[in-house]
Amino acid sequence: MSGSRVSRVVVTPVAFEDPPLLNVVGVHQPYALRAVVEVHTDDGLLGLGETYADETHLGRLDAVAAALPGHDPYDLHGLRLLVGDVLGRETGGGGASFGGMLDVDSALDTVVSPFEVACLDVQARAAGVPVSDLLGGAVRERVPFSGYLFHKWAGHPGHDDDAWGEALTPDQLVAQARRMVDGWGFGSLKLKGGVLPPDAECTAIEALRDAFPDLPLRLDPNGAWTVETSVAVADRLAGVVEYLEDPTPGIAGMAAVSARTDVPLATNMCVIAMEHLPPAIAQDAVQVVLSDHHLWGGLRRSALLGGITDVWGLGLSMHSNSHLGVSLAAMVHLAAATPNLTYACDTHYPWKTRDLLAGDPLPFVDGAVAVPTSPGLGVELDRDLLGELHDLYLSCGVRRREDTVYMRSIQPGFEVNTSRW
Amino acid sequence: MSGSRVSRVVVTPVAFEDPPLLNVVGVHQPYALRAVVEVHTDDGLLGLGETYADETHLGRLDAVAAALPGHDPYDLHGLRLLVGDVLGRETGGGGASFGGMLDVDSALDTVVSPFEVACLDVQARAAGVPVSDLLGGAVRERVPFSGYLFHKWAGHPGHDDDAWGEALTPDQLVAQARRMVDGWGFGSLKLKGGVLPPDAECTAIEALRDAFPDLPLRLDPNGAWTVETSVAVADRLAGVVEYLEDPTPGIAGMAAVSARTDVPLATNMCVIAMEHLPPAIAQDAVQVVLSDHHLWGGLRRSALLGGITDVWGLGLSMHSNSHLGVSLAAMVHLAAATPNLTYACDTHYPWKTRDLLAGDPLPFVDGAVAVPTSPGLGVELDRDLLGELHDLYLSCGVRRREDTVYMRSIQPGFEVNTSRW
Repeated sequence: MSGSRVSRVVVTPVAFEDPPLLNVVGVHQPYALRAVVEVHTDDGLLGLGETYADETHLGRLDAVAAALPGHDPYDLHGLRLLVGDVLGRETGGGGASFGGMLDVDSALDTVVSPFEVACLDVQARAAGVPVSDLLGGAVRERVPFSGYLFHKWAGHPGHDDDAWGEALTPDQLVAQARRMVDGWGFGSLKLKGGVLPPDAECTAIEALRDAFPDLPLRLDPNGAWTVETSVAVADRLAGVVEYLEDPTPGIAGMAAVSARTDVPLATNMCVIAMEHLPPAIAQDAVQVVLSDHHLWGGLRRSALLGGITDVWGLGLSMHSNSHLGVSLAAMVHLAAATPNLTYACDTHYPWKTRDLLAGDPLPFVDGAVAVPTSPGLGVELDRDLLGELHDLYLSCGVRRREDTVYMRSIQPGFEVNTSRW
Repeated sequence: MSGSRVSRVVVTPVAFEDPPLLNVVGVHQPYALRAVVEVHTDDGLLGLGETYADETHLGRLDAVAAALPGHDPYDLHGLRLLVGDVLGRETGGGGASFGGMLDVDSALDTVVSPFEVACLDVQARAAGVPVSDLLGGAVRERVPFSGYLFHKWAGHPGHDDDAWGEALTPDQLVAQARRMVDGWGFGSLKLKGGVLPPDAECTAIEALRDAFPDLPLRLDPNGAWTVETSVAVADRLAGVVEYLEDPTPGIAGMAAVSARTDVPLATNMCVIAMEHLPPAIAQDAVQVVLSDHHLWGGLRRSALLGGITDVWGLGLSMHSNSHLGVSLAAMVHLAAATPNLTYACDTHYPWKTRDLLAGDPLPFVDGAVAVPTSPGLGVELDRDLLGELHDLYLSCGVRRREDTVYMRSIQPGFEVNTSRW
């Protein structure tokens, strides 16, 4: 036990403008929410974490924040127990929402995560080493990301068009990809599907293949298809995509598809917690698991997922929700220190228009972010920007992610596309 | 990356007197060998590790020691790569020997282990925290061990009898257990079997049950039995033993036994490396895995094993070979920081008569060792004692563990008892 103890914890909800990105359950609202967690210690250190900010989740974060002073920042097992105790006192409710797309049985991992990251930031700052060193050391100096393509409207109804413009056709998606590749240098591309009928999305992938013959491509319809359709798409896109992500919902469904194709199946929907690994592995349901430290309980639990996928010979990639720079820093340290994370990571980072970090510590160069070598996560908050985004949270009116509700406010008859085709 | 770099690495082989403990492949030689690894850094820190010292293993340790200066002690992934590179340059030979009982496909994990422990010791000393803090923090202040009972002769042929005396009958084993319990306070007992026919060993367990009605008991014949015999013993000892360890060799054999009994089966023979976990789990071959950081590649890899057993709902215990205090310290930190390590750990510690630590930092009280709270592993070398044990290594003539060879020098017709009964 170190002498250092948590002295004060601050949870700040923030909002930032988000384009109308379409997905299987609807469309992104005009504002995305995040929470920034600051863990201050009595020896003057500050560790940072970032997580979701749905109001239920925020309530849990606040409850943990109130209980954390006095805690040893090295005591991560104790942190997990503490969060469990705090959550045990509340009634009802599962994990954080993800626009209706995902649900986890327990909120434990999602609530632990930002505090764990902040504690590791504190530990690393105290030791004078980057967070990646606390995860066994960076095995790569730069972490490659994939350009994340979305079907989208030109702008949110009632708002001006955004800078990206409409993307509902293959040509428009290729133009979006061109902008991603030219602006950020991405060396691989992922298309969020589940929006248009499968034939249209396959055509878009084929157009991307033609336009970018050397870039690995991924398609993720978030479970929009039946098993039969998934197999047909896999047959069509065999040799075109590096993996197909969540073509159909559920471990059993994915296993049924997997048995009938050699195209690797990836998931961030049917394997999103440790308890999903044994049945998924037993059924050979997926070949690639997408890690996400926000969802899996922090960086050390994500390292455990990395170890498990390595032992069982599964591929490992990384998932992203809309996020800001504290999350990006944590993702970069984790990815750098996970030897078998050999796929480029997902990121929504280019879709936001502002951040809350001091300076520009995490620039994308050739589609990759250099791993910070300064102590901790290597990022600091810009208090003015944090204040601006917090003010936007207060004024924007969004309090939870509701892609379907928002979509229905525009298209009243909208039904989610899960297993639709 | 920290500024600290490895400046010098010293590998010191040592020997210490070991009683004639009997097992499935023969008998312990008069001297047990260990190697102490010192990792010095250019900022004046010293980290310690301890491992096997068979001459083949020693050669590998020396080769790594020569390559390690300049390495960042935080770069544990890089350490693994470095060891792999060093081992790749040598020809032939698998893992360290264990008296003929165990073999591992690769020497990588066993060679990495002492250097990884020493690097974590350095990291923890630099941060001013105990090693357990680098593993997520101690979840228990004291680590319970089990008293490790052996069939044995009164003394090595040609030597004086040792202080323990002969143990070849149930009464003698009960007396040995009494001495273990009275002297160290152990709250559970393990009998090393595979020496006498199963009926005799069952009778011994039943005598221990009568003498110590409240103590959990374990029996470990190291694969001496057939599947049929294993099932029969399990039936006989159901409700008497907390688990049966390696009744029969191999994952398939253990799975065949497991299918026919509810007595939990433990192993330190058929699951001793990460690559054994998938088939063992798929076949439901074992219910308890014995960790051992010396064998599994260090403390972080052992934490991974802990996480895997937790996710799959397997029990977790801890294995021991003959060892000294540096290993004991590492075992205590690991056990303290592994939440699901709920079984008392094995240890050969009471069987040795001397050690090489300064002071008595790890006393057994009520069968448990308090987790050191001082920086690092919390132990220091006594250079005089280290010198004595190194001199004993030089003079004792033992250069590798050869239980069977030694047994045959006394009983020329001896054959190993593997699957004998």
